Amino acid sequence: MERAKTDTRLWSNKAKNLSPYVPGEQPQHDNLCKLNTNENPFPPSAKVGEAITAVLAKQADELRLYPAPESDDLRAALAQLHGLDSQQVFVGNGSDEVLALVFASFFMKEHPLLAPDISYSFYPVYAQTFGVDLIQIALADNFSVDVNDYNQPCSGIIIANPNAPTGLLLSLTDIHKLVSAHPDAVVVIDEAYIDFAYAAKDSLDKAVSAISLINEFDNLLVTQTCSKSRSLAGLRVGMAFGNTSLIEALTRMKNSFNSYPLDKLAQAGATASVLDKTYFEQTCQQVIDLRESLTTDLTALGYQVLPSHANFIFARPKKGDASAVASALREQGIIVRHFNQPRIEEYLRITIGTAAQHQRLIDALKVL
Amino acid sequence: MERAKTDTRLWSNKAKNLSPYVPGEQPQHDNLCKLNTNENPFPPSAKVGEAITAVLAKQADELRLYPAPESDDLRAALAQLHGLDSQQVFVGNGSDEVLALVFASFFMKEHPLLAPDISYSFYPVYAQTFGVDLIQIALADNFSVDVNDYNQPCSGIIIANPNAPTGLLLSLTDIHKLVSAHPDAVVVIDEAYIDFAYAAKDSLDKAVSAISLINEFDNLLVTQTCSKSRSLAGLRVGMAFGNTSLIEALTRMKNSFNSYPLDKLAQAGATASVLDKTYFEQTCQQVIDLRESLTTDLTALGYQVLPSHANFIFARPKKGDASAVASALREQGIIVRHFNQPRIEEYLRITIGTAAQHQRLIDALKVL
Repeated sequence: MERAKTDTRLWSNKAKNLSPYVPGEQPQHDNLCKLNTNENPFPPSAKVGEAITAVLAKQADELRLYPAPESDDLRAALAQLHGLDSQQVFVGNGSDEVLALVFASFFMKEHPLLAPDISYSFYPVYAQTFGVDLIQIALADNFSVDVNDYNQPCSGIIIANPNAPTGLLLSLTDIHKLVSAHPDAVVVIDEAYIDFAYAAKDSLDKAVSAISLINEFDNLLVTQTCSKSRSLAGLRVGMAFGNTSLIEALTRMKNSFNSYPLDKLAQAGATASVLDKTYFEQTCQQVIDLRESLTTDLTALGYQVLPSHANFIFARPKKGDASAVASALREQGIIVRHFNQPRIEEYLRITIGTAAQHQRLIDALKVL
Repeated sequence: MERAKTDTRLWSNKAKNLSPYVPGEQPQHDNLCKLNTNENPFPPSAKVGEAITAVLAKQADELRLYPAPESDDLRAALAQLHGLDSQQVFVGNGSDEVLALVFASFFMKEHPLLAPDISYSFYPVYAQTFGVDLIQIALADNFSVDVNDYNQPCSGIIIANPNAPTGLLLSLTDIHKLVSAHPDAVVVIDEAYIDFAYAAKDSLDKAVSAISLINEFDNLLVTQTCSKSRSLAGLRVGMAFGNTSLIEALTRMKNSFNSYPLDKLAQAGATASVLDKTYFEQTCQQVIDLRESLTTDLTALGYQVLPSHANFIFARPKKGDASAVASALREQGIIVRHFNQPRIEEYLRITIGTAAQHQRLIDALKVL
């Protein structure tokens, strides 16, 4: 069926020339085994629901009023969690909104932005939205980032770590080297999946998050999200950590787009999640354990699985093309993500689910 | 105390040159009589809390998953309410986010944007954010909009109706004339306060909202919000209504900034509010009645009160300057808004509150 041509007569050139981001689909079927958008298989902390219910209980005095524009309580909780000052913390409507403000605040400059050629597919979209010249640096053949490849004039660098969709981790040593080498560029480490990562056994660092380097560098910004490790994709809360002057730029940019991006319930829920450290650590560990067992099972089936530090794995089927495997799984109600993109078209990105979901996946793959 | 100079070394020129919007303050004190940010004195519909609680009850399956990116249920409810198709409805994270996307989609063009010189103070901020040339057209001496003043080349026109902070209403006849006269420009009618408006007694129109003109014009966009008449400032939901091609541009722009701006709870709560028509109409009428009685009381005290169609009044004290009155009220815990801006510095904008709040205000003014 041919689609009616859109009338773009009244659109700005900006609107005409966009190629918007395409999120992973959110099909609404029963008995679906949804392993395509890296959602957490476990529910959020019970404290989240309790905190939101408490707000609703006095809703007459709450929802009718504007929320705290700078989400003070949430920023204070995040600052305490990471040993930072509140002024080093910014929050937004999901890390996607935070990243949009990052592009506008730090990358709209004379020199290009550098990013890996295979990474979060929203980066090229932001570059187009904000008129940023993006140079994509090829990953090595094993999909790793070589920080030496970034030694060229740039206004900024953005690297997802662990990277998506590969799941590979860049070491803190490499990040230190990268940030040191570019004192006049803002280096953004997008840590959407960092809570599922572990330091290499031979590493001198115990930490994996670049938040540990923030007090050392004024040009390092770290972004994170509540959508993955905190099981709150439905609540839309993302954050950035960095030097106070970087945070101030983001705050000014936010207040030139939309002053109140986090509603009262999202602020209350996310704060409760941050304060419940025990549940957070338990569920992250459970996801990691499930990832290791899924990796073992897929390897036994002849899949090549990259060593993942995220809540998904990136795996290549032994034979046949990945696209066909994805289609065959879909017929059985199992949705995984396939990227029709050079270099990675032979791979599938599979979100870590429950043990039962993994069993269903493995059973289906065995008889393909 | 001198403020430490911010280090803007790593900021984009865009970030350096912004003059962000300054929202009305949200002081956190007990026994405050807060009449400064046009929040509704009544709570939202009880259905809102019930709908959100229902989502939380099955939270394990809900908050961990991404929300519907295009807020389908909410858009369907709004479409039905206004006799439109869902494809003629857009929603965003408060009408502030909707307006930001409107500026990027329709006003980033060769010709300037026209807006009244006295209007919502976020418009000049957006113009700066998106590099839009804004020409401010002077209101008449009585603060009314004369649509004949807009007969000049432009890429777009934006008018708040009722206007803020004056509260004055532009008739549908005038809007029809304006939209007809500019077929190649997008005309945005920002109806944040329209649900408190009434048609003039001598008007042929019964309707006051320009939504009634949408099927007639492809260049008309109407924005509204749940923050005022639906008592949901804390939930951050705004909307736009227009021709499907205008809505498609907004959707593409949204998906180039942030794909999921409305969280699951905001979608559920706003949908429940839209469906509860009875409560909505009751509370709007109550606010209108309170506005009329406050107008009567202030007039009796010698205040000049503009005829308001909003949930605030714009009033000039009989003697003494408005700024001094605002300060004196503040000392008694009563917060109203004063704009230190030419032509309106003698006025106060006072949000419609409860009868008790009005009594406290009037009692305080009597002894000033």
